[in-house]
Amino acid sequence: MTKEEKKKMDSDNNIIYVGNKPPMNYVSAIMAVLSSGSYSEVVLKARGNAISRAVDAAEITHNRFLTDAEVTNIDIGTEVVTNEEGRKSNVSSIEICLTMKKTEK
Amino acid sequence: MTKEEKKKMDSDNNIIYVGNKPPMNYVSAIMAVLSSGSYSEVVLKARGNAISRAVDAAEITHNRFLTDAEVTNIDIGTEVVTNEEGRKSNVSSIEICLTMKKTEK
Repeated sequence: MTKEEKKKMDSDNNIIYVGNKPPMNYVSAIMAVLSSGSYSEVVLKARGNAISRAVDAAEITHNRFLTDAEVTNIDIGTEVVTNEEGRKSNVSSIEICLTMKKTEK
Repeated sequence: MTKEEKKKMDSDNNIIYVGNKPPMNYVSAIMAVLSSGSYSEVVLKARGNAISRAVDAAEITHNRFLTDAEVTNIDIGTEVVTNEEGRKSNVSSIEICLTMKKTEK
């Protein structure tokens, strides 16, 4: 891995792709990123049916584990996905940005 | 129905609750509200698995039917739901606000 590649990877390490696993898996991932000290922000990305799971993960994190983590931005969009038969279809997507509140010391 | 009640109903007529019907049903409902002339804004509300359907409906409306309708605000939250056995559980919710862009005449 070149330095360039490593740098790119590092800069994307605060993006979590939400899929079909139980919501708590993503909550753990969010907490790992936010408590690593490297990032004050984490972005959850999801498509299709996983959208509701991304919302669940953000809400569980904020309500139960990290009350200092706030939802600062939500974007929705549409992505074109090509299926196995080569047909294109549209699928909705969401990006949820969770940011740690700055606490005064 | 008293005048008060009617007023309340009217003021809530631009809220659409998204459930388990096909997304196009909600797209039609959105278009009906926005083209009635009474409202320049419509709010989609959904809980749990219907969250992704609400995103679908907003995206389909914006991309295919009413390109002047823009997503102006998205909020997520948690609601407490009591099931048939009387147990309480948390469910995620979303509110998507679609607003008609003002066009110059």
